[in-house]
Amino acid sequence: MSEGVEWVLHSCTVLAALPSDQALPAAKLAELHDVAPAYLAKHLQATTAAGITCSVAGPRGGYRLARPPAEITLLDVVLAVDGEDTAFRCTEIRQQGPVAGPPSCYRRPCGIARAMWRAEDAWRAELEATTIADLVDELLATVAPELLQAGAEWVQQVEVARGRRRTVNEPRAPQGATANPTTRRSQP
Amino acid sequence: MSEGVEWVLHSCTVLAALPSDQALPAAKLAELHDVAPAYLAKHLQATTAAGITCSVAGPRGGYRLARPPAEITLLDVVLAVDGEDTAFRCTEIRQQGPVAGPPSCYRRPCGIARAMWRAEDAWRAELEATTIADLVDELLATVAPELLQAGAEWVQQVEVARGRRRTVNEPRAPQGATANPTTRRSQP
Repeated sequence: MSEGVEWVLHSCTVLAALPSDQALPAAKLAELHDVAPAYLAKHLQATTAAGITCSVAGPRGGYRLARPPAEITLLDVVLAVDGEDTAFRCTEIRQQGPVAGPPSCYRRPCGIARAMWRAEDAWRAELEATTIADLVDELLATVAPELLQAGAEWVQQVEVARGRRRTVNEPRAPQGATANPTTRRSQP
Repeated sequence: MSEGVEWVLHSCTVLAALPSDQALPAAKLAELHDVAPAYLAKHLQATTAAGITCSVAGPRGGYRLARPPAEITLLDVVLAVDGEDTAFRCTEIRQQGPVAGPPSCYRRPCGIARAMWRAEDAWRAELEATTIADLVDELLATVAPELLQAGAEWVQQVEVARGRRRTVNEPRAPQGATANPTTRRSQP
C-alpha cells in the first residue's frame, strides 16, 4: 500500500474539519503534515478524479471534500489512491506448464484466487464500514485539546495570510483592508 | 502482494498431494507451473525458514511440507513470502509539521492507523481460516479428473527420471535396477 493512503486520509480529516466555506491547497496540506508536496498533490488529484475531493479555483481556492465526510469511506480513499486492483493477482499459472489442459478446463476461477479474494472482500468490507466522519469523531474524542486548537489556528492563519497576499496583489482592493481576518471573508 | 504468494500457494497444494515419501525440487515445481526457477526457489526458502516446508537432501530430495496441510494456513504462506509487515504503514505524520505537539501527546496509536489495521485484521482472520488442506479439497472437487491424472503422472515421471539418473551416476548400483519405478524406493 502506498504511503499516499496515509497522507490522503490525514488530509481528508483536515478537509472534513474545515469551515464550510474554506478550502486548502495541496501545498498547505503538505506543509501541515510535512510531506512531499508534489506527491501529495498527485494523490489528491486522484481523489478528485474519484469524486472524493473537489478543487476550488481562485485566490481562496484549494481542496475541499466533494461530499459529506459521512459519505466517504476509507475504502473509497484507498481505491482512489492505490487503484481498484486486488492485492492478490491471479496470473492463471494453473494454465501454464506441462500438465495444463485446454482453456475449456478453466471456466471456474482458480480456487486459490477465490480464497485469496475472499480475504480481500473481508478487508474491503471493514474499510467500507468506516467513514471520514468516523475518523474525525475519533480524533475529536482522543486528540489533546491544545493540538486541536493549534490546528484550528494554523488553518485560520493560512486564510489570514491568503487575505493579505490577495489584497497586495489586487490594486482595486480598498485601502486599509490589508490583513484583518474579520473582514477577510467579505472580500471578493 | 508479490507474485510469489500465488506461486507458493500452488506449489504447496502440489506438495500436499505428493505421496508421503516423495519430495520435489524447486526447479521441478517451477517447471510444473512454468515460472522463474530462481524466484520460486527464493520464495520456497522463505517458506522453509517459516516452518511451512522442509528441504530434503539427497538424490530423491527436494521440498516437502513440514507439517500436515490442515495445519498450514494461507496466512502462514502470505506472511512467509511477503513478510510480517502490515500493508498499511503508519509513519506518524501526525507528529510532523507546524502544529505537532510533544511525543507525550501521541501515546495512543493514531486513529487512522487503527482503522486501517482493523481491516487488515479482518483480512488476516479470513486467510487464517483457510488451510492448504482446504485448497487441496477444493481442487480435487473442482479440477477436471484428466488434469488431476496428468498431474499425478507428471509427478511420477519426475521420480522415474530421477531413479534413472541416480542409477547411471551410482556405479555400485546392482545391474538391472536401472529405471524400474517399482524398485526405485528400495534403493539407498
